[in-house]
Parts: sequence; structure tokens; C-alpha cells
Amino acid sequence: MSRIAVLITDMFEDVEYEKPADAFIKAGHALIIVGLRAGPVRGKRGMIVKIDRAVHDVHVSDFDALFIPGGYSPDKLRIDDDAVRFAQEFVKSGKPVFGICHAAQLLITAQVLKGRRVTGWKSIIQDIKNAGAEYVDAEVVVDGNLVTSRKPEDIPAFSKAALEMLKSRK
Amino acid sequence: MSRIAVLITDMFEDVEYEKPADAFIKAGHALIIVGLRAGPVRGKRGMIVKIDRAVHDVHVSDFDALFIPGGYSPDKLRIDDDAVRFAQEFVKSGKPVFGICHAAQLLITAQVLKGRRVTGWKSIIQDIKNAGAEYVDAEVVVDGNLVTSRKPEDIPAFSKAALEMLKSRK
Repeated sequence: MSRIAVLITDMFEDVEYEKPADAFIKAGHALIIVGLRAGPVRGKRGMIVKIDRAVHDVHVSDFDALFIPGGYSPDKLRIDDDAVRFAQEFVKSGKPVFGICHAAQLLITAQVLKGRRVTGWKSIIQDIKNAGAEYVDAEVVVDGNLVTSRKPEDIPAFSKAALEMLKSRK
Repeated sequence: MSRIAVLITDMFEDVEYEKPADAFIKAGHALIIVGLRAGPVRGKRGMIVKIDRAVHDVHVSDFDALFIPGGYSPDKLRIDDDAVRFAQEFVKSGKPVFGICHAAQLLITAQVLKGRRVTGWKSIIQDIKNAGAEYVDAEVVVDGNLVTSRKPEDIPAFSKAALEMLKSRK
């Protein structure tokens, strides 16, 4: 069993949280929902998720992996210094980091993508390239501790690759 | 009187369209609303704007200036090849281009910011820098034909600088 931090705030893409979260729980992992502050956050399509821990109170050492859902949540997270630092320390720690859709925006602000192979939603392709990463147009891209996908349709491949990485680390 | 193309789609930041548009109209300019297709688009807070022309049907030569409101509209515009080409040709033409908040995202995908001085919403600061631009933290930044601002609070300075540029070009 791994402890997975889910870094999320308002305007997340509902299905990009819900389906991977279901897959992680079904596989026996524990999810801890980390946000900007305690309380509920709301997805683009109305899904409500309760934040368990504020990001300024948590440390990478509390978790085994990080999951960043997409939508406009990463755009809101990347203006928060604690969220940026948390994501940055996670990637640098070598522990698994799973990101889908706009998730790479947070990793760009965290300046941890240089030389990495990643994918993401098509609107941010140029941002990914400008960050010094190699953009790969595939349903899932695994590079070291990073697992990234482009969009909701990629979720099955994304969840499978993430679960395989968690299994290989145990 | 200048003909100003407003490039916009769903999830625009309502006030970032409404207030500059009012200022432009009050000064006697004509606004032509350009979007991905004909029909209404809806702002983040519910404002409805009717698209006059589809971006694949318009040319830079039809207009004197371009105005790109912020919000999540630029994130949606930058996945459309015609919208990216239109913004790119506008900047390269030397005609005035006004962008606020997330507007620079579209200009990043258009690859026209290298060496330019610009500003934008704080979530995209790293993207602006990675695009080769100089990020300036000011309420309005004027560089050649580009006028950019950061957020709704900057609108008065943004509209003033845009109107001055239009006046100086006539």
C-alpha cells in the first residue's frame, strides 16, 4: 500500500481526478487530498472533493507518490509558493509523480522539466517545449519517476502505468 | 476610428472583456468579435458575447488592432491553428496587439514573444520567461506594438495605454 498525495484545487477536470483515484483505491492505496487550505473544492463539472491537508502543512516525506489531476486546477496551484515547492521537492525526491492534462503547468513553474520526456494537454505543448522538456504525443509517457498523460481518454493507460510504477517501487 | 478585432471564446474573464470594450467603444472605435465559430460564447461569470466572425474567415488586413481578453479563453484559443496563426500574423504585422491576464498564452503558442517585454497573470510568469520574453511586473507594459497587463485591477491603465497607442497610429 502506498500513500498518494493528490494535489488539487477548484476547477479540476472531474473525471481526471475521479477515475485514477478509483483505480488507486481499488488497488489498495491510500489517497490524501492536499489543497491550498482545508474545506471543499469543486471540479469544472461540479464534483466536490474535501481537502484533507493544506499544502503548507505537508512534506514529501509524508507520502510515497504525488498525483496531480488536470483541468484549471494546476493554473490555480502554480500561483501558490507552497504548492510549487511541494511539487518541486516531490519530483526531485525521485518518488513517483503522476500528472495528467494541464498538470505539467505546475511542474513548469516548479522548474523540474528540463531534459525530461513528458506529455500534456495540447494547449500547453509550447510551454512544455519552452521549459526544456521533450514533448511526446502519446497516451502515457513514463520517464524516470514521472508518469504523464494528455487528456481524459488517456486515463486507463495513465492509471495502469501509475499502478505499475507503484508496484515496482515496493 | 479604428477597427479592433476581439479574439475570444468561452470562459473569458468577463470584466477583462467588458471594461476595455466599453472604453474602446466610448472612444469611437469599432469592435468586431472574432471567435472559433459563429454563435454565442460565455464568460466565466456568465456574460454572453456574440461572435461576429469565425477566425478562419478573417485576415489581419481587415483590422487595425487586436484585443485578447484573459480568463481561460486563451487556453482554448491556443489549441486552434487558425487562432494561433491570426495572433501570430497580427503581432508580426506591427499593428497594435492588446492582451491582458492569460492572453500571453496565445502569443506563446504563436511564438512571437522572444525578446519582447511583456506582462501577464502570475500563473504564467514562468511560461512567459521560458518563451524568451522579459517578464515585467507592472500594471501595463508597452513594447513596440504590444500592450499587456496582469489582471482585472490593471484594466484602467491597460485601456488608457491601448487608446493612446491607437491615437498615436492615426
